[in-house]
Amino acid sequence: MPPVTLTSDFGLADSYAGEMKGVILSGSDVPVIDITHELPRGDIWAGAWALRRIWMRFPVDTVHLCVVDPTVGSGRRAIAARAGERWFVGPDNGLLTFLDHEIIGIEAVRSVWRLRPPVGAPVSSTFHGRDLFAPAAAALARGRLDEALGEELAPASLARLAVPPAERGPEGLAGIIVHVDRFGNLVTDLPVEWLGEEPRVRVGTATVSGLADSYADVAPGTALLTRGSVGTLEVSVRDGRADRELQAERGDTVLVEAAPR
Amino acid sequence: MPPVTLTSDFGLADSYAGEMKGVILSGSDVPVIDITHELPRGDIWAGAWALRRIWMRFPVDTVHLCVVDPTVGSGRRAIAARAGERWFVGPDNGLLTFLDHEIIGIEAVRSVWRLRPPVGAPVSSTFHGRDLFAPAAAALARGRLDEALGEELAPASLARLAVPPAERGPEGLAGIIVHVDRFGNLVTDLPVEWLGEEPRVRVGTATVSGLADSYADVAPGTALLTRGSVGTLEVSVRDGRADRELQAERGDTVLVEAAPR
Amino acid sequence: MPPVTLTSDFGLADSYAGEMKGVILSGSDVPVIDITHELPRGDIWAGAWALRRIWMRFPVDTVHLCVVDPTVGSGRRAIAARAGERWFVGPDNGLLTFLDHEIIGIEAVRSVWRLRPPVGAPVSSTFHGRDLFAPAAAALARGRLDEALGEELAPASLARLAVPPAERGPEGLAGIIVHVDRFGNLVTDLPVEWLGEEPRVRVGTATVSGLADSYADVAPGTALLTRGSVGTLEVSVRDGRADRELQAERGDTVLVEAAPR
Repeated sequence: MPPVTLTSDFGLADSYAGEMKGVILSGSDVPVIDITHELPRGDIWAGAWALRRIWMRFPVDTVHLCVVDPTVGSGRRAIAARAGERWFVGPDNGLLTFLDHEIIGIEAVRSVWRLRPPVGAPVSSTFHGRDLFAPAAAALARGRLDEALGEELAPASLARLAVPPAERGPEGLAGIIVHVDRFGNLVTDLPVEWLGEEPRVRVGTATVSGLADSYADVAPGTALLTRGSVGTLEVSVRDGRADRELQAERGDTVLVEAAPR
Repeated sequence: MPPVTLTSDFGLADSYAGEMKGVILSGSDVPVIDITHELPRGDIWAGAWALRRIWMRFPVDTVHLCVVDPTVGSGRRAIAARAGERWFVGPDNGLLTFLDHEIIGIEAVRSVWRLRPPVGAPVSSTFHGRDLFAPAAAALARGRLDEALGEELAPASLARLAVPPAERGPEGLAGIIVHVDRFGNLVTDLPVEWLGEEPRVRVGTATVSGLADSYADVAPGTALLTRGSVGTLEVSVRDGRADRELQAERGDTVLVEAAPR
Repeated sequence: MPPVTLTSDFGLADSYAGEMKGVILSGSDVPVIDITHELPRGDIWAGAWALRRIWMRFPVDTVHLCVVDPTVGSGRRAIAARAGERWFVGPDNGLLTFLDHEIIGIEAVRSVWRLRPPVGAPVSSTFHGRDLFAPAAAALARGRLDEALGEELAPASLARLAVPPAERGPEGLAGIIVHVDRFGNLVTDLPVEWLGEEPRVRVGTATVSGLADSYADVAPGTALLTRGSVGTLEVSVRDGRADRELQAERGDTVLVEAAPR
């Protein structure tokens, strides 16, 4: 049975994630799977990146519920979207940006609907995760599309983060750091296939050369380039934090000087 | 199938929550749902508030297991209670205080039992969560009440936190902050229905007026009043932390000067 | 249905744990249970201790997946092991050390296999948790041993942490602190059965005497000895942190001066 996954910035010191789980389990029998509730507060980019990474790992028809919702209660739309044979539910604020990103995305968002508020239950103005998104996710999980989906919307009307696309030019490649993980690894949007034989990468305060097969290829404390687990270039420091040691952060430009293949 | 929910202060760096899950899954086939294990150490009030918020969101007959147990191994009783058509299992130290709180509670605790220790398994003196509460929760979840429930106790004998009730007087309302959430929002025990048209609320160092529909109604950095997601008054600062900016904390008095309706 | 449990140092700010869950749920219908993802980065000892504590609490045939993998992509083997009627999946770097530890372990590791890489799916060099261990765990969970298990290995060839065994000598007992928990409790490897009537324990800066029945037996702020929840001696400070107050940490020697029984 395809699960409902939960991705949020609610943290775990409060009961907010638990309240959502209760609503989902009251409306369906599907497994409820935590992705994370520890996204930085209000960090839509981080939520969008998590969705980009996880969605295709789950079975077809999984419902991915993502709540990073700093403008809850404003005019921002509450939506469900269909992409890659999975469902996505949450606020329309850019959380789907990386799904169909032209470089690192994989799947077009084919259809989008405004959510239908649940019948006979009040919707608070501050907690749509519990009152609007969770009931919709439960309805989709048990195949009751009519209960969840309202007016159909144009996919092109979806909110979108302003993330510049990676570029290939005559001088080399230009990308950005799209994520810094717990270990301080710098995940870029540059597909490893774009790189030449001996790439020289300028990121933060450093220039790093050559693609390593694994962290174990270099000495502890040394910076290295790897093919990351989503197929893009990553910059790491073995047994260290690349973000601190190379003074780099999300959004920073990454330049590759070698000639692309 | 109604789940067993887990709420504790065990944290997630240790295996304690995991050991409880194993015991529950060894004794039943029900879903095991994390509410939180990140309650502040020994903070019974925080556990009581979490239970107050989550219990009714889950299906009828859900077993809510809550372990905040600073006096484990002392004379405090180990209990199961029935309230609102759900089960509650844990130490008798005040964790059920908010369930039937006269203002913000919803459901009377109808029946209470001392837990029956599991047959043939030793009970450690320091980890009743695993050795006593988890087996009882599993037994209740699969409907074997006799295995879990011992001597029946008087509901009036339940331990209770000393939380003063909210009050309506001729000069206005007096309540308290019952919870400060991850975002710094101040949750009070004052039902929004008690407020007048243009409430003036004194909390911490500030006086805040007027009820907003959502955070988006005010400018970033501004304090606002909202109807919280359990129906009581909340004081927030948009894109900020009300607890820090208004110098307020749990237990502080909140005064409303407007005439009640 | 026996679950798959997850124990890792991935943290919850990233999607890594979520990606593993998706792979497991795509390959099986079993419950996926979080033990913890908050192990200290690269701390194999902490992972080994968590496995030691949790494995026997879960049903027979549970698959325990543990990923603390600082040398991912190097020559370290990826393995599945059978011990105590459960499965264990992860890197061969010492994570099974405490399972068959001669003093505090319980169950011999009977059989070990190299993992068979999944057919038709690429294996990244940096994320074996998702690409190698999770598919193997899913295959084992649904009983398809042939899909997961490759070459059989000698149990004696398993990597092992250098943890000195506890000792009984004429002068008393010598053990170590094997874990410091969230509450600052010092868990030792000394079975309580080894202790005499009135043990005197030297640990860190303190000497602590007598075995207490529970934390409530001593005054707040006082150090005490208890029978821990795995049957070994623990040193605690009531309502305090023994690690800080006694200046003790994992690996420190613990001496018991009383004559053993």
